[in-house]
Amino acid sequence: MFSYTIRQIAQIHNDLIEKFGTPRQSGLTSIRSEIVFEDEFSDLNCFRGLEDFSHIWLIWGFSQVPEDTFSPTVRPPRLGGNVRKGVFATRSPFRPNRLGLSVVRLEEIKPGMLVVSGADLMDGTPIFDIKPYIPYADSIPEASNGWALATTSGILDVVIPQNIADTIPNEKLDVLIELLAQDPRPQYQSNAERIYTMSYGGFEVSFYVENPKLYITKIVKRN
Amino acid sequence: MFSYTIRQIAQIHNDLIEKFGTPRQSGLTSIRSEIVFEDEFSDLNCFRGLEDFSHIWLIWGFSQVPEDTFSPTVRPPRLGGNVRKGVFATRSPFRPNRLGLSVVRLEEIKPGMLVVSGADLMDGTPIFDIKPYIPYADSIPEASNGWALATTSGILDVVIPQNIADTIPNEKLDVLIELLAQDPRPQYQSNAERIYTMSYGGFEVSFYVENPKLYITKIVKRN
Repeated sequence: MFSYTIRQIAQIHNDLIEKFGTPRQSGLTSIRSEIVFEDEFSDLNCFRGLEDFSHIWLIWGFSQVPEDTFSPTVRPPRLGGNVRKGVFATRSPFRPNRLGLSVVRLEEIKPGMLVVSGADLMDGTPIFDIKPYIPYADSIPEASNGWALATTSGILDVVIPQNIADTIPNEKLDVLIELLAQDPRPQYQSNAERIYTMSYGGFEVSFYVENPKLYITKIVKRN
Repeated sequence: MFSYTIRQIAQIHNDLIEKFGTPRQSGLTSIRSEIVFEDEFSDLNCFRGLEDFSHIWLIWGFSQVPEDTFSPTVRPPRLGGNVRKGVFATRSPFRPNRLGLSVVRLEEIKPGMLVVSGADLMDGTPIFDIKPYIPYADSIPEASNGWALATTSGILDVVIPQNIADTIPNEKLDVLIELLAQDPRPQYQSNAERIYTMSYGGFEVSFYVENPKLYITKIVKRN
């Protein structure tokens, strides 16, 4: 059976320091990330011509998932966590070879670094490949969404009192609201009284949800 | 530096037995392929729910490319072979980790096998992951094509005399014409007198090109 070792060519850095709150797909938010390349791949020539593309693919590793956790079916959080789907019918991390796939917007090319927006990768995630997004091959708007269609629903209306909003820089607040609007809660949790706390960009953010609204109750700077 | 071993979960089987003539991107032809899974992943439960999706991603290995052939720039055949682009600005096989990415149409789900159409993978290529194509995340029709735009031009008009057409089954002929229309020649070759021979589906096909026409001169069954 064919096998070989793949190694990190770059690592992503952003404000998503925990799984809770990390978007479940790419393109749902405007969060910025820096992709920092290993020395070997940091020559600007590696990216020659990439500036003509607006979007790029990242092939990356679910590095927090232990090896050999494969099971034929998984329970996608977006389906409430109690419906089983085949692992190859999902984008679940618990898959053979633990490879992730995301398209992001290319914002800037610097020596040894690409700045992108819209990633759904946690800070520190290893990246194995970067490819240009080629719409004539990659874009199929008429493809059927399958059961994943459900994920576009359930966008929350985020409510934040002005005095709390003032405690966090504007550009971080904008992304925070996008992240929360996606409803980061595990879907099998619908206890409306529960207060959740999420880390984001050096802050701890507390909130509760009363569908279709999400209320931010506190933002505290982390030490 | 983060690294791990990935292994083949499946292998693709189709009529593309040599690189010459293999499409340079997915979705350009209707060629059918069978993706045959390793025993461990052949449980039908692995695909539960996949029938709701029309398209799937394949992450695969450029298994014919030797290890450690990385160079910062490559010369894409579609640009005539004499313009250098950064490897990460191309879909070239000569890249770190040798991973390929293709979207194909899902035609049929069988025990231990997926039947797909539109692949650009050669017969025997190892597959490392299968994911559903989720248009709300993956489809970005307005993304810019970059220099790859050039690849949609140059479609040839394939001419075949009826007596030659009669020597190959109709369904093979249809795909053959799609493959040839993509102009399989190396782009730095524009010698109009040269006769090329390509293997396809158990046949040897000879042709020459006088832009914008491609003339099939002979089809011989292989022994």
